[in-house]
This record gives sequence, structure tokens and C-alpha cells, in this order.
Amino acid sequence: MEDLSRLCVHTITTKPWSLEIAVEQYARAGIPGIAVWRDVLEGRSISAVRSLIANAGLQVVSLVRGGFFAAADAAARKRAVEDNLRMIAEAAELGAPLIVLVCGADPAQPLAESRKQILDAIREIAPVAADAGVKLAIEPLHPMYTDTKSAIPTIKSANDACVELGLDNVGVALDVYHIWWDPEVENEIRRCGEIGALFGFHVCDWRVPTRDFLLDRTIMGEGCIDVAGIRRMVDAAGYTGFIEVEIFSSELWATDQSKYLQRIVQAYLEKV
Amino acid sequence: MEDLSRLCVHTITTKPWSLEIAVEQYARAGIPGIAVWRDVLEGRSISAVRSLIANAGLQVVSLVRGGFFAAADAAARKRAVEDNLRMIAEAAELGAPLIVLVCGADPAQPLAESRKQILDAIREIAPVAADAGVKLAIEPLHPMYTDTKSAIPTIKSANDACVELGLDNVGVALDVYHIWWDPEVENEIRRCGEIGALFGFHVCDWRVPTRDFLLDRTIMGEGCIDVAGIRRMVDAAGYTGFIEVEIFSSELWATDQSKYLQRIVQAYLEKV
Repeated sequence: MEDLSRLCVHTITTKPWSLEIAVEQYARAGIPGIAVWRDVLEGRSISAVRSLIANAGLQVVSLVRGGFFAAADAAARKRAVEDNLRMIAEAAELGAPLIVLVCGADPAQPLAESRKQILDAIREIAPVAADAGVKLAIEPLHPMYTDTKSAIPTIKSANDACVELGLDNVGVALDVYHIWWDPEVENEIRRCGEIGALFGFHVCDWRVPTRDFLLDRTIMGEGCIDVAGIRRMVDAAGYTGFIEVEIFSSELWATDQSKYLQRIVQAYLEKV
Repeated sequence: MEDLSRLCVHTITTKPWSLEIAVEQYARAGIPGIAVWRDVLEGRSISAVRSLIANAGLQVVSLVRGGFFAAADAAARKRAVEDNLRMIAEAAELGAPLIVLVCGADPAQPLAESRKQILDAIREIAPVAADAGVKLAIEPLHPMYTDTKSAIPTIKSANDACVELGLDNVGVALDVYHIWWDPEVENEIRRCGEIGALFGFHVCDWRVPTRDFLLDRTIMGEGCIDVAGIRRMVDAAGYTGFIEVEIFSSELWATDQSKYLQRIVQAYLEKV
């Protein structure tokens, strides 16, 4: 990218930092957007967090992450809906325009059942979100997470869900980590734009070899994903929003976070 | 399944056993089919292996595994084709009617380039295989292997490759481990049958949680895959061949292999 005007960083990316330090450091690095992970809200006044971020000149891009709707146990499904309703209220108070949904999966039941429960739950919470001015983005998750994290493993299945739901405030958040392998990536990104569902775009990279199922992502350009290629597809599909850097890496979290943030900014300018 | 008449076990499944012991134990357990991994041929006379298997009353179902065609380096691609040609000769000598292809991927180049190289290589070796009476089966691999093992991560992409190639002796081998997560599994299995490409079917299960990218598969019924459901889809698509048990598991390899084989047979009867 030619400048930092669309750059957003997820708080989880610099997990060792407190919210206060993250906000200060992002602002100092010229990063205009922040995606807030819900754990940083714990024990804090949400309106104070909102002020902290606004006073630093940052914009809240999204609140991460809701969902986990699928469960064989009906009481667990009810708790998930209630928790997502609380999160919608939090998003509204924080001024976050978007909630990213990791939709859930329960290995104790068929995938089709998990998918049905996901759609049922989104149907239930979406009107509340709409009233609060909050959009919901289904994030298709890499198929290595289909057992317990999401029964929506492809862009196509996320697009299909949006079409089936037919709700203006429900769309898709695309993360290169989850979608890069898919031979349908270009077709389905285009379709996502056509149906007006392209709500968010996350970047990082797939490390080769990947040594951990969860915590071994890397910085854009340091893995095998054609991040810039996918970014161009997303642009071509009409997306003009923030580009969110979301990296989970126990290796990178163990390094100096200021230098790591500099590497992220540099990679964003050169590799995205 | 109601009986063992379609059961086949891959030699890798009981990796601690020598070929001689595996053949003896499979026969004793009433298993009629064996899939031979290429490593067991090393240092052995192939015709002697063929006799050993035949004399035990077993049938060779497939030779596993060829492929690894994709490489940014042209010399490496040439070596892969040569190695696959040697493997075709081995299959013919062994009496194996089918070679399973793990098609390869090179993270140093775009996925589309890896896919193109895969098709080019298959076009080159398929006529030689046809002359030898050997079929080739593209095995779509789980997207967690798209970085270095296969640029063909879905049934759809394998079916598309077969259609594009249009070769009678090139089809698809489906392994529940690689395809279970896919929302298109039923549609694409049906299509695979319709295009006459359903050449092989492998079973095992996806352990929850999975602790290793490669060596943590488990026995059918002990993970989250609806193995019987997928088997019914494969049957409905017209498949009548062997059902091959292919399990890589450092945990299970560390157990008594005779008892483990009994568990496999039982699981095949009850869960497939």
C-alpha cells in the first residue's frame, strides 16, 4: 500500500501490550485504525476506552470476536446468543461499527446442524445489531478449524450464508490466513462484493512450516500467501475499508513489540 | 459395513510392522485388500512382494504415493516426472491397478502456477500409466497442506482437474480426512461419480483436538468425521471399490499393533 491511511491493527497482534500502550504506540506509528479484542474491555469502562482511543486520534474499526453459536446443547446456544447481544451493546458503546463473528462448530453434531444453528442465531441477533447501528461480519475460518471453531470454512459458504439470511447488516470478514488456499478465492471475493457483503479484510501470512495450529501466523511477506494479490482482488470487489493486521504468534509476541510494530508497518507498505 | 469384503488397509497404518508381518496379520484378520506404501518396496524384489501378497490371499489395491509435481525449479519438476514414471513401472510389476497422487505445491510460487505444473506433469505420465494398465488418482489434500503438499485442496478442484485433463485413467481418490469439512462434499462427490472419476476412497477420523499437523489421525468413529455419512455419499455416487484405511498416528503406532488392527476391523464394521 502506498500509505497508512487504511491500516488497522488488532490489539491481539501486540498482545503483550496493555490497551493504553497499544493505543499510544499505534498512534505514534501513524496507524489510524484499531480493532479491539474483547478481552481488553474486561475490567475497563467502555466509554473510557472509547475516549482513550478517540483522544489518540484512532478510529475503532471492529470489535473482535463474537459468534460461537453452534452447540449440541440448547442451553449453550442460548448463552451464546445472550453473550453476543451483550457484545452488540458493548460495540455500540465503544463506537465499533462492526463485530467479527467466529461462528462456531460442535464436533458432537453434524456440520449441517452447526451451520443451521449459526444462521438461526444470526437471524436472532441481527435486528438488535441493526438497531444499535452495528454490522456483523461472518469470518470464514480455515478448514483446520472446522472441528470446534467454525462450520463456515470457505468464502463461498460465508457468501451463501449472507444470501440465505438476506440481512443488510450481515456480511463477511475475509482474512487471507483463512482463504488463501482456496481455488475459488477470486470468484468468491468478486461475488462477495457483488452481493454487497464485503465488510472487512484481515491480513497476516502463513508461515512455512507452520508449527502450531493457532499461534504461528507471521508478518505479511514472510510466509507463502500472495497477500498483495488477494488485496487487489478485494479492492477490485469494491472494498475501500480498513485493512486489519491480525497476527497471533507466540514467537513474535516474545520479541520487542515496538520493533515488531515497525516491521508490520513496513510490511504493510511493501507487501500488502 | 456389513462385512469385510471391501476392506483394505494401508501398510503405513501399521507402520511398525514389516511388510511380511503386515501381510500375515491382515490376512489372519480377514482383510482382503492391501495398499502398499512405496517405502516397503525399498530393498525388496517387487515380484517377490507381489507373490508374498498373492500367496496370503490379499489383493493389491493401490501403490501410495506418487505426485509432488509442483516446483519452481524446472529440474526438480523433471526429477518428479521421472520418479513417477519409475513408480508406474513398479505398480505394473506389483500388480497395483492404481497410484495415489499427492500432487505437490511449492510455497515459492503462486498456487495457480503449482496447479498448472501438476496438470502438465499428469498429462505427461498418464499415457505411460495407461499403457501399463495403471490408473492415477488425484487425492485432494486438506487445506492445511496447501503450502507444501498439494495445490489441489478440494474435491471440486480435483474434479475440475480431471475434467480439464479428460483422460480415462486419471481420477480422484477421496480421503474423509481431507474432505469432511467441505460444505460442497455431497455435491462434489456426486459430480465425481458422474464424471466417472471416483477411483478410490480412504477412511480414518479427525481427532478432537488434533495435536499434530501430520501424525494425529485416529480410528473411524473416534473423531468428529461422519465417516458413514460420507461413505454413503460415495456409494450413492456409484463407487463399489475397496474402502482403504489410512491412519498416520504416532500415538497409535506406539500401541500393540495386533490389538490396534482389531480395533480398526471393529470400527470398519460399526462406524463406516
